[in-house]
Amino acid sequence: VTYCLAMRLDKGLVFLADTRTNAGVDNVSTYRKLHVLDAGPDRAFVACSAGSLATTQQLLDVVERDAAHSPVTGADRLFEVALYLGRTALAVADEHRQALVASGADPGCTLIFGGQIRGSDPDLFLIYPEGNYVRASDDLPFLQIGESKYGKFVLELGAAAHVDLDQAARVALTSMLSTARANVSVGPPYDLAVYRNDSFAMEQVRIRPGEPFLEEAAEVWERHLLAAIEELPRLGLEQLSDETG
Amino acid sequence: VTYCLAMRLDKGLVFLADTRTNAGVDNVSTYRKLHVLDAGPDRAFVACSAGSLATTQQLLDVVERDAAHSPVTGADRLFEVALYLGRTALAVADEHRQALVASGADPGCTLIFGGQIRGSDPDLFLIYPEGNYVRASDDLPFLQIGESKYGKFVLELGAAAHVDLDQAARVALTSMLSTARANVSVGPPYDLAVYRNDSFAMEQVRIRPGEPFLEEAAEVWERHLLAAIEELPRLGLEQLSDETG
Repeated sequence: VTYCLAMRLDKGLVFLADTRTNAGVDNVSTYRKLHVLDAGPDRAFVACSAGSLATTQQLLDVVERDAAHSPVTGADRLFEVALYLGRTALAVADEHRQALVASGADPGCTLIFGGQIRGSDPDLFLIYPEGNYVRASDDLPFLQIGESKYGKFVLELGAAAHVDLDQAARVALTSMLSTARANVSVGPPYDLAVYRNDSFAMEQVRIRPGEPFLEEAAEVWERHLLAAIEELPRLGLEQLSDETG
Repeated sequence: VTYCLAMRLDKGLVFLADTRTNAGVDNVSTYRKLHVLDAGPDRAFVACSAGSLATTQQLLDVVERDAAHSPVTGADRLFEVALYLGRTALAVADEHRQALVASGADPGCTLIFGGQIRGSDPDLFLIYPEGNYVRASDDLPFLQIGESKYGKFVLELGAAAHVDLDQAARVALTSMLSTARANVSVGPPYDLAVYRNDSFAMEQVRIRPGEPFLEEAAEVWERHLLAAIEELPRLGLEQLSDETG
């Protein structure tokens, strides 16, 4: 499995992906799933992938080879780049589908794509294996692919609390840690990319096992959770115990 | 779907279940999934169910009918009651399996069972549709059935923080709320049961939509989340942006 997520904030975008891949528990490896696309000075793009690693790699090779004449460098709007990536990923998957399906494998990959083209707003897209997309919504301004359930709680709270860009990176990492703790097929190192609106440049960092953040975060969360629990209204078990008992 | 959970604390047990059932989105209904078994003055039991509602109801009817001569009233050890429930649920499922499988339905149900028999310690069991069981562990002293992923984060934190019985009830309800927010097939009212060790009696409450807790909890969590985020170590994006960029 994989876990990738992206958040859209007032001041920019945050992307985070794990690096663990496996073809069965006896074949676990580390591959980058967060990719900055080389696109030109008036644009900045990130694509994160879940699903077939082979399809993802061929997709990226094709996209890089054709960049000079493709929507990656030429499009005026983000959704055109999203559609191009979806169409290309589907074509790659179709090229191998018959052989893969015959051996029980799925050639599809799901992408999170986001960034900015000068002259339009930054945005995030979830691109399905079929090549179509949905955007992040204003109500829930984040996207997740792969093992998305374990880490959703903290993302929702972060979104509701209107975190800023730096806070969002830490919320994203917390979401990743709770996912990795629950599912061993999600694991470090983690690739983080932060985009500040109108910068047309991606800041990237790889967070490795042993990073102080990974140890300190658990202590901080636990302490604040206890404080929150203390403050939650009491449930009044005493008075109500006969109501349904 | 369903979400039921149970926590084992130093001073007792907490059980929580939602009540939403559905056979397709156009057939959504409310059924109790948390059941206190009438077992006698030297014992107290709760069973929560996920899976086939019909199997669960027949199981409970059979268990009640046969209680006077079954392990529910006669066993000296909890695991014997767990095995009896598992065996009986499997027999009920087998009785209907051929017809249900033919129509594409699954007759199985998964149970959380817990309580105490005088003379032994309280405990929790997860009973599989096949009739066997696992106990809650000391490392993760809680069990979940149904849609368990969304609400795991807060349960793990609560367990790590060694919450007491009253805190645990609020942690359980928070776990339920984050699950219900993420999955519309989990919903209120919620049935909560609390067992205090050596009391041999269950305290029960039904938490209905509009209960102040449900509104206030979101505000409390959001405020403490922000405080936690503020305190998380910074990720040092500036210094590290060239490392992998």
